[in-house]
Amino acid sequence: MSKNGDTWFFDNNIYIRAYACCVGKKESEGPLGGLFDLFSTDNRFGEKTWEKAESRMVQLACNKALFKSGLKSADIGCLLGGDLLNQCIATSFAGRALGWQTLGLYGACSTMAEGLLLGAALVESGLEHHPLCCASSHFCSAERQYRFPLEYGSQRPRTSQWTATAAGAVILSPDTGGVRITAATAGRVYDPGVCDTNNMGAAMAQAAYETIATFFRDSGESPDNFDLIVTGDLSLVGKGVAERLLRQDGIDVSRIYNDCGLMLYDLNTQDVHSGASGCGCSAAVLCAKILPAIEKGELRRVLFCGTGALLSPVSAFQGESIPGICHLICLEGKE
Amino acid sequence: MSKNGDTWFFDNNIYIRAYACCVGKKESEGPLGGLFDLFSTDNRFGEKTWEKAESRMVQLACNKALFKSGLKSADIGCLLGGDLLNQCIATSFAGRALGWQTLGLYGACSTMAEGLLLGAALVESGLEHHPLCCASSHFCSAERQYRFPLEYGSQRPRTSQWTATAAGAVILSPDTGGVRITAATAGRVYDPGVCDTNNMGAAMAQAAYETIATFFRDSGESPDNFDLIVTGDLSLVGKGVAERLLRQDGIDVSRIYNDCGLMLYDLNTQDVHSGASGCGCSAAVLCAKILPAIEKGELRRVLFCGTGALLSPVSAFQGESIPGICHLICLEGKE
Repeated sequence: MSKNGDTWFFDNNIYIRAYACCVGKKESEGPLGGLFDLFSTDNRFGEKTWEKAESRMVQLACNKALFKSGLKSADIGCLLGGDLLNQCIATSFAGRALGWQTLGLYGACSTMAEGLLLGAALVESGLEHHPLCCASSHFCSAERQYRFPLEYGSQRPRTSQWTATAAGAVILSPDTGGVRITAATAGRVYDPGVCDTNNMGAAMAQAAYETIATFFRDSGESPDNFDLIVTGDLSLVGKGVAERLLRQDGIDVSRIYNDCGLMLYDLNTQDVHSGASGCGCSAAVLCAKILPAIEKGELRRVLFCGTGALLSPVSAFQGESIPGICHLICLEGKE
Repeated sequence: MSKNGDTWFFDNNIYIRAYACCVGKKESEGPLGGLFDLFSTDNRFGEKTWEKAESRMVQLACNKALFKSGLKSADIGCLLGGDLLNQCIATSFAGRALGWQTLGLYGACSTMAEGLLLGAALVESGLEHHPLCCASSHFCSAERQYRFPLEYGSQRPRTSQWTATAAGAVILSPDTGGVRITAATAGRVYDPGVCDTNNMGAAMAQAAYETIATFFRDSGESPDNFDLIVTGDLSLVGKGVAERLLRQDGIDVSRIYNDCGLMLYDLNTQDVHSGASGCGCSAAVLCAKILPAIEKGELRRVLFCGTGALLSPVSAFQGESIPGICHLICLEGKE
């Protein structure tokens, strides 16, 4: 195990042992419908408030991943997770219900990648055997908190993204699984000065570029060695910016680049404008689409790059621009 | 390196290489006044908003710790930190200014301990050499966010705690320093059913008891082997509850038990009611009082137990009780 530049390279085999995701109605009707483990037809998951519904979704995803892993609950070491809610209550209340050691994270929509990065480091060190990494978001709790209550019926500009109602959970293991985590780059915070909270993709694009370029520099690899580079979630506007920044730096990813925010919904029919966002988006796309494709051999080497916009409503009201961050995970299937 | 029960035991020497803290006016007038590296006489640190003041305080503490470490800025690997603000903006904006790789944490007032725990694991694994762990809180930003704007002049009940205006930063190292981290226990989430957001000490006390008892069970140690067990921040009400729960379990800590929430202010003269709270409290007491005492040989073995109340105003409004968490760090001086 070693660090070169900003990138950790793992010597040991760190496997993804099991994973699961849970989504809302709109997500289940999108192009990945049928690939999710669980979904709700009313986005409430049997709860009376959106915040409790989100926390329930985290529990459902975690318990489903636990079931698929064949492990007992007592085998799970630490839960590493977070969400977008103030004080990360979706994750904390899920931690209370699940009973595992709980390490709360905040990386906005990069949280799934942040959890995998730290979880992989803990497995590499031998301190943890089966950490569980999770992340969630819920359209209705996020709208209430970041923007307006749903009842207000506010208009959304074309650049805005739709917060996914989704949660994903991934259990790591030092000994068995179909996908390995072989390297990871923890990101730095970049801020290109975007102040429009309805254009977060543009705000995060520089961070995505910087972290991906850093990984190629640190590893000596090139896009040719990968089958997929996927950011989450820059969506329409941000993906174009990130791709252009990479090309200007001599890194052509056009052949293999996609964004989780463009994979979750059908942009032509589902009225989500620029695409999806939210911690749950990249978590669910990872668990529903990317990891199964690696397991099946359809993809062999993938860079999963979680991107987060580190704003709050207060920072925006106070005139601050929106800092972005991107954490990268290198995933590999069997040779 | 190994895990027994919930506790990580570190084989390598993981040192605290340098540390610093930065506080507000009230804190500088308390019993630890004179021990802080930096303080502000108007709590604004040259900024126009309380939130920006808190972020500036994080930067000041981090830069002071960096200066004291003798390292260059490029030597710092990852910043592991968090705060109480919605979406952890104090830490994120500090990460933007400082330029380091940034891993955001959310553990409420347990954040300093959570950062040390993860930072120590990263040093143990060999992936990081000099991670920086930090945490902050600001009375004025916390009141606005959790309770009422200051201008409202709301009454505070006797059980309430005063959110510290403080930030602390600790730089770890695999090779040099006066204090070692030898073990750590990541906590589980416990909820004894307290719904009074003005009595968070009582809500967190069970988590403190559970984690401390777990550490003694996992390590085979007893309170006799320690010079100080310090929670942060249970304050008057919670400290009594935790002490009673430990005693009922046959663990008598009375001789060596203190709480950061009772060390920062003079409860008789400073009008803080039950004591201090906030991520910055335990971070600042650690850096101003505890670590120097270990370095000087006044204390040799210390359990630093960060306690966090994992509520949000929304969870409280929705009738939820307050879950608590406690992360424990075992600190040791030279033989």
